[in-house]
Amino acid sequence: METTYFKSLEGFSQGSNVDLEAVLENLNFNDQGLVPVIAQQYASKEVLMLAWMNLEAIEETLNKGRVCYWSRSRQTLWRKGESSGNTQRLVEMRIDCDGDTVLCLVEQTGPACHTNRPNCFYLTVSGKHVAVNSDPVSS
Amino acid sequence: METTYFKSLEGFSQGSNVDLEAVLENLNFNDQGLVPVIAQQYASKEVLMLAWMNLEAIEETLNKGRVCYWSRSRQTLWRKGESSGNTQRLVEMRIDCDGDTVLCLVEQTGPACHTNRPNCFYLTVSGKHVAVNSDPVSS
Repeated sequence: METTYFKSLEGFSQGSNVDLEAVLENLNFNDQGLVPVIAQQYASKEVLMLAWMNLEAIEETLNKGRVCYWSRSRQTLWRKGESSGNTQRLVEMRIDCDGDTVLCLVEQTGPACHTNRPNCFYLTVSGKHVAVNSDPVSS
Repeated sequence: METTYFKSLEGFSQGSNVDLEAVLENLNFNDQGLVPVIAQQYASKEVLMLAWMNLEAIEETLNKGRVCYWSRSRQTLWRKGESSGNTQRLVEMRIDCDGDTVLCLVEQTGPACHTNRPNCFYLTVSGKHVAVNSDPVSS
């Protein structure tokens, strides 16, 4: 899963810069042209959700500063919050060592989850059970 | 991407319990039998890495309390830290609303990244460049 390009960056010291264009060109998209994207609330560090981006979604997110995913079910760009109003402002985008995962630090407006819970990870394994760890936020 | 099973859980209140076995049976694995897994440092909330698990890896992780992924490159179970010593003790496992992503809160020993950096997201987009945001930890 590791390309020569990302391997070549490993020895670079903190503060080194490389061209964004080269990084984006070398991203390791899956066979559907997508990478998984973790959205993390910037201030609280809460992990909000995981979704997917293609190159176009990544570029739009960077250009507009508002997170845009690729909806696998609808097969179209999904501008987070376009129907719910629960948008994500991009604070910072990071890319991982293999160039196959993106981490977006965001400022989330409203609940991130379609169930109206603050984040999507509302099921916690507890022994032989799974417990619901949060309630929907009333709007 | 949303199954009837996970849809049926959405209305449950905080504190409700469902059977772990039913949840695991209904997970939405991809066509390779895998789900993406986010590893987050429990105390600091730092996002460490993203990797993949099949059902066997999930069950082993829960049973042993030590994180075990599926290595897509080696096509085998990957007990994190088995060669490096940089293990992840499972503190809590959470599952998302669609049953297609796992979040593991872990206690990471040593650096999480194969580059010896604390986490895998060492590349930060900054304008038209990407900056290296951390150095390898000297061992």
